[in-house]
Amino acid sequence: MDKLFYFVPAASVLALLFAWLFYRRMRKADEGTPTMKEIAQYVREGAMAYLKQQYEVVTVVFIILAVIFAVMAYGFNLQNPWVPFAFLTGGFFSGLAGFIGMRTATFASARTANAVGKSLNGGLRIAFRSGAVMGLTVVGLGLLDISIWWLILNAVYDPSDTHNLIVITTTMLTFGMGASTQALFARVGGGIYTKCADVGADIVGKVEADIPEDDPRNPATIADNVGDNVGDVAGMGADLYESYCGSILATMALGASAFFGDTTMQMKAIFAPMLIAAIGVVLSIIGIYAVRTKDGASLKDLLGSLGRGTNLSAVLIAVLSFGVFYLLGFSNWWQLSLSVFSGLIAGVIIGKVTEYYTSHSYKPTQKLAESSQTGSATVIINGIGLGMVSTAIPVITICCAILLSFGFASGFHFTQEALPFGLYGISIAAVGMLSTLGITLATDAYGPMADNAGGNAQMSELDPIVRERTDVLDALGNTTAATGKGFAIGSAALTALALLASYIEEIKIGLHRLGEQVVSTAGKGIDAAQASIPDIVARYDISLMNPIVLVGVFIGAMMAFLFCGLTMNAVGRAASKMVVEVRRQFQTIKGILEGKARPDYTRCVMISTKAAQHEMIFSSMLAIIVPILVGVVLGPAGVIGLLSGALGAGFTLAIFLANSGGAWDNAKKYVEDGHFGGKGSENHKATVVGDTVGDPFKDTSGPSLNILIKLMSMVSIVMAGLTVMMH
Amino acid sequence: MDKLFYFVPAASVLALLFAWLFYRRMRKADEGTPTMKEIAQYVREGAMAYLKQQYEVVTVVFIILAVIFAVMAYGFNLQNPWVPFAFLTGGFFSGLAGFIGMRTATFASARTANAVGKSLNGGLRIAFRSGAVMGLTVVGLGLLDISIWWLILNAVYDPSDTHNLIVITTTMLTFGMGASTQALFARVGGGIYTKCADVGADIVGKVEADIPEDDPRNPATIADNVGDNVGDVAGMGADLYESYCGSILATMALGASAFFGDTTMQMKAIFAPMLIAAIGVVLSIIGIYAVRTKDGASLKDLLGSLGRGTNLSAVLIAVLSFGVFYLLGFSNWWQLSLSVFSGLIAGVIIGKVTEYYTSHSYKPTQKLAESSQTGSATVIINGIGLGMVSTAIPVITICCAILLSFGFASGFHFTQEALPFGLYGISIAAVGMLSTLGITLATDAYGPMADNAGGNAQMSELDPIVRERTDVLDALGNTTAATGKGFAIGSAALTALALLASYIEEIKIGLHRLGEQVVSTAGKGIDAAQASIPDIVARYDISLMNPIVLVGVFIGAMMAFLFCGLTMNAVGRAASKMVVEVRRQFQTIKGILEGKARPDYTRCVMISTKAAQHEMIFSSMLAIIVPILVGVVLGPAGVIGLLSGALGAGFTLAIFLANSGGAWDNAKKYVEDGHFGGKGSENHKATVVGDTVGDPFKDTSGPSLNILIKLMSMVSIVMAGLTVMMH
Repeated sequence: MDKLFYFVPAASVLALLFAWLFYRRMRKADEGTPTMKEIAQYVREGAMAYLKQQYEVVTVVFIILAVIFAVMAYGFNLQNPWVPFAFLTGGFFSGLAGFIGMRTATFASARTANAVGKSLNGGLRIAFRSGAVMGLTVVGLGLLDISIWWLILNAVYDPSDTHNLIVITTTMLTFGMGASTQALFARVGGGIYTKCADVGADIVGKVEADIPEDDPRNPATIADNVGDNVGDVAGMGADLYESYCGSILATMALGASAFFGDTTMQMKAIFAPMLIAAIGVVLSIIGIYAVRTKDGASLKDLLGSLGRGTNLSAVLIAVLSFGVFYLLGFSNWWQLSLSVFSGLIAGVIIGKVTEYYTSHSYKPTQKLAESSQTGSATVIINGIGLGMVSTAIPVITICCAILLSFGFASGFHFTQEALPFGLYGISIAAVGMLSTLGITLATDAYGPMADNAGGNAQMSELDPIVRERTDVLDALGNTTAATGKGFAIGSAALTALALLASYIEEIKIGLHRLGEQVVSTAGKGIDAAQASIPDIVARYDISLMNPIVLVGVFIGAMMAFLFCGLTMNAVGRAASKMVVEVRRQFQTIKGILEGKARPDYTRCVMISTKAAQHEMIFSSMLAIIVPILVGVVLGPAGVIGLLSGALGAGFTLAIFLANSGGAWDNAKKYVEDGHFGGKGSENHKATVVGDTVGDPFKDTSGPSLNILIKLMSMVSIVMAGLTVMMH
Repeated sequence: MDKLFYFVPAASVLALLFAWLFYRRMRKADEGTPTMKEIAQYVREGAMAYLKQQYEVVTVVFIILAVIFAVMAYGFNLQNPWVPFAFLTGGFFSGLAGFIGMRTATFASARTANAVGKSLNGGLRIAFRSGAVMGLTVVGLGLLDISIWWLILNAVYDPSDTHNLIVITTTMLTFGMGASTQALFARVGGGIYTKCADVGADIVGKVEADIPEDDPRNPATIADNVGDNVGDVAGMGADLYESYCGSILATMALGASAFFGDTTMQMKAIFAPMLIAAIGVVLSIIGIYAVRTKDGASLKDLLGSLGRGTNLSAVLIAVLSFGVFYLLGFSNWWQLSLSVFSGLIAGVIIGKVTEYYTSHSYKPTQKLAESSQTGSATVIINGIGLGMVSTAIPVITICCAILLSFGFASGFHFTQEALPFGLYGISIAAVGMLSTLGITLATDAYGPMADNAGGNAQMSELDPIVRERTDVLDALGNTTAATGKGFAIGSAALTALALLASYIEEIKIGLHRLGEQVVSTAGKGIDAAQASIPDIVARYDISLMNPIVLVGVFIGAMMAFLFCGLTMNAVGRAASKMVVEVRRQFQTIKGILEGKARPDYTRCVMISTKAAQHEMIFSSMLAIIVPILVGVVLGPAGVIGLLSGALGAGFTLAIFLANSGGAWDNAKKYVEDGHFGGKGSENHKATVVGDTVGDPFKDTSGPSLNILIKLMSMVSIVMAGLTVMMH
């Protein structure tokens, strides 16, 4: 069976190879007129300059944390000696995935704009294939990191010892913390950067000066386009790298612990998520190739084509997971596959519900647009109401997915004995949802790429048809991306839940390391390594009647709000600075609004950069420090409460923010399409206010929340040794 | 010791007597000019007409629920036979408290306006004493209901049997459900009514037509003033009646269960909260009389006087609680008093923090006002950010209060054995915070009374000085009300936590009723009545590793958001209708804006009434149905998860909404005071948008959340028998 493992690095290499291939092909396309090239170059430099600065800050944070981990590991024996290194590689690869994605995006924008001028289909191909570069890079690097660590740790720890398999898999989890840390910085920093520029540009440009989006006369426009790259592309890449690896690593760790004492079954349970991910790579590549249309394809053809690609991979992974579990020789092979199946269905439902609430093809967003007739205040009230109400079905859906994936894997025994198997089922469901990330991320990332192309077209003053077409591609992307987003949201909840169990595992390891005994359910004192999850739950009284647990729940819920508030304020503050600067330029640079004088783009870029650098540190550090403090002060019971509270409140808050933001965006587009007075009307201005408020909702605070939840889990896991020592 | 009980009905009668006294005295004051009388009459009739309609709807709901409870009790023996009646009285008295408060308010408005024309101090006296009528009515009726049921149930069940004391106290808890149901309808219905009118009036009046608040030319102005009465006064009365009784009843139930097997101690633990409340009544009356100033008192004098009243009662209750526990003969008398003390301190801190974030004397709201310079979008973004960030200290404070009040009462043993005593400490802390409700509610309710007086003055076109003075009184009220609000918020969280434990008690009773056995921690099967909380926790696996519990947490968090979203949408929808109507009147009724033609106030009143009636039903019913469904489908583990999730997310969400709304309101006032351009400037309009968005935040969705949390707990408690039967 060991040989099966080599499918994983092979899939990794395959993914990276195709990513390289698509990248080369994209680079060969024509970048268009000298102006287009110049602007693309400008955006590229700005984006790279920012990313370099962000990485510098993050590097400092990583070095500090790695040193702390090293002290804990070598100084106090509170941790595995490999933790500092695993942590660093996770951060490195996550950053690399974001970097490659962003580099690709900045090369693709002018090329997409150029191609789309000739045909819609040509534009789609370049944008989508560029998105695929990011998708395949993320999964390729993810599987590479996993493969490397598996090989290293297998060489160090004898995998035929059942306890060692636990040590190996939980050590690997810590590279997840590196990835989460990087992802949070990328999402928060990038999110603040992009929304500060976007909000600032919109308020002065659209609302006050009445010039269109991405107009070269707007001094914030370059910053806005740079922001799209560092926020939507690099941020998204780091984010999904973290989700992808997190789900696989958590499942491996749960598999090792569920079958403790039986190394053969442990191995199978560890291999299953890796193999499903490896198969997912192949299916993604097949799916990407399925996205092809004849020249002169209609919009409907394009939509059908994109849908075909993602649906094909999703259906195939559902089918093939039966094969994986069967071939690995699980006795409950079809039940485990049904766990995966539940997750996939849940992802599809969440995607569809998101689409229903945020697309202007449906009632809710149309009604939201209608409320612009009574001014911006009702647009805001109704948008917030819409977002809050929209949380109901996704939460119910994820609850069903939890119960079903747990139920199938445990034979519907909701008992303490069946707990580890059920948790494994929940976790493997998350892996199923993310296994075809190669293609779902492509459909998600290509939207921002098309958007960037539109920006390039506008700034290069190309024929308006080009912008219209990139807008069509962007809108198309929003529809097809829904499923991918549903998978990402759903899997985040499931993975976070699985990480709770991994935390208990780490507590056991910590106790074992300190040589402590645990009272088993049978009432005997046993070595902590042999303890079951219920034993640890009993030891620390992790029941909801324990006030310490409830205090944790309170703090967790509060953390979600506090974190959102901090990022929201950061955007608000920075955007105000941007507005002041843009107004200043409009007033002091003569001829700027007539297009005769060139605005000072650099100052705006600097404002965004500074704001992002400055504001991301406190909120991100909070996510690392709070779980450590809670662990030290309140112990494992408090930590589990913290993580559960953050998960419940944070997940719901994230959906609310994303959907309110999305609905405002599309309500504005609906009005721009000529409803309720159309562009330039008072109603339009009211929806622009909604869209502006929605910007930090959907692109800064909202997307950061899922990472926050997982990072807090990861920090708790890595710091479990310290917590155990104190309690 | 039984004789001590008679202090409770005596205090009740005392409170009602003084309420009557203050009411009579207020009625004797001069109501002013005929116009003032006419307008007051108009508002009074509108308010009474609405309340009558609301009570009709609520009566139907109550009858249906009472019939269901009767069937459960008499048909299936799933419940105590007294439950339907207790439920009905709770609803009745809660409604009565709201009704009396509102009636007082509508009589006081013109009289306050008239008195304030002569002196600030005279106005303060009438408004504050009218607020005291409501405060004393609420506590008087609360203690009356508690006394009556205690006497009845003591006559029926022999209180010398330890099990009977549990039955008596948990039966009494169900009248809490009646109060909660009434309170939720009052808050949601009243909240929608008032904010629909307020938002509608502001959008057209202030933003579009540029006429001041409460201008008689505005057709929505009567509806707005009626709304202030039905929402802020009647809603607040029903709400705090529920909180007050809920905290006392929960503590009685916890006391009975903590000392199970020792009837003497049970009695003491049951009497303690009642006695503290009774003493609180006396202290409130003393405090109310301490609020007196010389004629011609300066603003500072008034503020000092109000503060003196509330602080005096709070300090005295802290001191006297030592006496109560000592005289009752608790061995840990001073520790229990420190539990009460922790709660009081927490309430004060929460109040101060609220003030810091929402008063324009401090940086946060000033900065918010400043952000109006970059338009309404940044006002909204920063206001939401401010509200979210402002949740941090209150949540941490309440966490400290939980740990301290639990710790003192349990001797800082955070173990399962000490659990009942610690929970009793948490619960008694909530009682301490609400014991002086007679005066804190007076300081809270007198703000809306002053506001109403201002409305009357404006509509009666009195000298602008009158309006200015009522505004001063209103602002004064906001400052002094902070402590009372802190107590209300803090006690809601503590009571909700205590209700979790009461739920477990009801589960035990349900199991006992079905004749089921429970496995004790010692491993033996025992009768459910003898089971401890940890036994029940173990039986249903109420640990956070149980996926059913986590599913409950998700649903609970979602419920808080869903409920807010529904009420927010209701306000948005209704306000849009109001805007359309007001615009229509401005356009079609000639001379309306010149003050020559009389607007059609009635149509606006009807829009508000209809909206409130129609929209409150679904969201309120949801709060009743969801916990029942969760109980039936997921069992006690799911219910505890639900309640914890709702508590964590709902409590935080409530603070966020209240503080964002408060800050927007005061940021607008700050601009109106002449900062950043002052009244009529673009910046002012931007803050008006913020204020309008904040209206449903702080007056509809926010205040309903605390009741939602407690109502869901109460429903779960009452329905525990059904849940047990199904699981």
